[in-house]
Amino acid sequence: MPTLDFTKGHGTENDFVMLMDEFGSTPLTAPLVRFLCDRRAGVGADGVIRVVRAQAIEAGAHLPPDTWFMDYWNSDGSLSQMCGNGARVFGAFLEARAGVDLSRGLLVGTRGGARTLTALGGGRYSVTMGPCTIGDDDFDAMVSAGGLHPSRPALSVDVGNPHRVVALATLDELDALDLSREPSVEPSPPDGANVEFVVALGEDASGERGRVRMRVHERGSGETRSCGTGACAVAAAVARWAGAGAPRVWDVEVPGGVVTVRLEPGDVLLEGPAILVWNGSIETHVGLSGE
Amino acid sequence: MPTLDFTKGHGTENDFVMLMDEFGSTPLTAPLVRFLCDRRAGVGADGVIRVVRAQAIEAGAHLPPDTWFMDYWNSDGSLSQMCGNGARVFGAFLEARAGVDLSRGLLVGTRGGARTLTALGGGRYSVTMGPCTIGDDDFDAMVSAGGLHPSRPALSVDVGNPHRVVALATLDELDALDLSREPSVEPSPPDGANVEFVVALGEDASGERGRVRMRVHERGSGETRSCGTGACAVAAAVARWAGAGAPRVWDVEVPGGVVTVRLEPGDVLLEGPAILVWNGSIETHVGLSGE
Repeated sequence: MPTLDFTKGHGTENDFVMLMDEFGSTPLTAPLVRFLCDRRAGVGADGVIRVVRAQAIEAGAHLPPDTWFMDYWNSDGSLSQMCGNGARVFGAFLEARAGVDLSRGLLVGTRGGARTLTALGGGRYSVTMGPCTIGDDDFDAMVSAGGLHPSRPALSVDVGNPHRVVALATLDELDALDLSREPSVEPSPPDGANVEFVVALGEDASGERGRVRMRVHERGSGETRSCGTGACAVAAAVARWAGAGAPRVWDVEVPGGVVTVRLEPGDVLLEGPAILVWNGSIETHVGLSGE
Repeated sequence: MPTLDFTKGHGTENDFVMLMDEFGSTPLTAPLVRFLCDRRAGVGADGVIRVVRAQAIEAGAHLPPDTWFMDYWNSDGSLSQMCGNGARVFGAFLEARAGVDLSRGLLVGTRGGARTLTALGGGRYSVTMGPCTIGDDDFDAMVSAGGLHPSRPALSVDVGNPHRVVALATLDELDALDLSREPSVEPSPPDGANVEFVVALGEDASGERGRVRMRVHERGSGETRSCGTGACAVAAAVARWAGAGAPRVWDVEVPGGVVTVRLEPGDVLLEGPAILVWNGSIETHVGLSGE
């Protein structure tokens, strides 16, 4: 049976199986991805990231051929455009396995478009997430959730995927949420939405940096330990609600750690840790031949 | 940082990190076990099994010094006496990593006492589980559970740990159970109990082999994919209810696969598959120095 070498890593406990496949000799298949992500019978992860040069993958056809491309798959075997937490782990893996220098930023390919990935030192990375699109009003939806009474107003934010952000008054309210069931949103988003609940924790002395704590229910996944686009949506919503002169830098506490969001004109940067935990090898006949 | 080599394996989707430590040079610590079992920040498993010679572990002091000993730890860092599904994976690991011949049965040490482990071929293993102790009456408790109305009578079975077995009439009833909450048992077991729900699926033409399907709520763990002692308790209960002449061999369908229980005089044998999925190595400073 062929042997597959991999590395397991995580960013704020959003975890990935990383595969180095520079020349595209090991294309992924949905059965292989599902097997690798199976937390009991396989390796276990939220997703698989194959690292490949743009010239070796169809989705990279529009990029310079030697661009590093992030071939990201969800645990259910579906393709995904991008994943902010995954992009940081992709960065750590590029440094460790391919000796790539990310200290001055590198353009990398994703199905969601080209992004700039930068190593900040100390195991931290930043990735450009593209623009956040936000509605005209402070609130444009209502959200109901387990443990939350009554329902609350929410703000719609698009970060390539749809979010509804709800402000709560206290950490007790945040802790009391039951996100084992999907929150209900009115009006109902046509393709569903990730729903974030956020509590403001204050600003630093300079007033240039704020801090919040959030929990998130991701459509299709339930409550998760971290959601990169969700953190960006939360920072954009909180900055909007705080009005003119609000901080543009937000430290966002998620259940799996802390990420930092920088709101820049026309782009949002997501910063945070990435950890490569261990290396493994597996002999598998699952999905390598495309069944 | 020291490097730890390990193998990940599972028995009917009850999964373990396996460590070979013949001479006892790498004692486990609770922080290391918790780290290894963490499904996002670590490797991910239900437990850790260290393979060591009896002479190199205090719990093996009463055994012949070169006896192989199964040093089993739960994912929360606590010690456990034995684990039937884990014992099969321990067997597969002994064969693969130490070249041990298990085809004619081998006495191995556990904190729950010495057991006989036998390779049956085809990736299947059997392990002696000790005697099942069962009450005098067909039913001696009542169980209430989510999705089950009204509450049902149950039979207490001890397999080294306490069980309450509930017979259901149909697979629809079994499927409708909500085991996300702990079933309630009357009278309340002093240290809690594992609760099994079982549906009889019939006997083969010879009448010597029966088949059942079960689900289980394990105390402290919630619903699990498989429970070795639970399968034994279920077989003992179903055989009791079926009366004289009932099969002594039961194929028990659990969510993670099928195990076979043989009810023998004074002992119960648990048979089933064990799979070594992959090998890994991790550099860790967690818990190796006993902090």
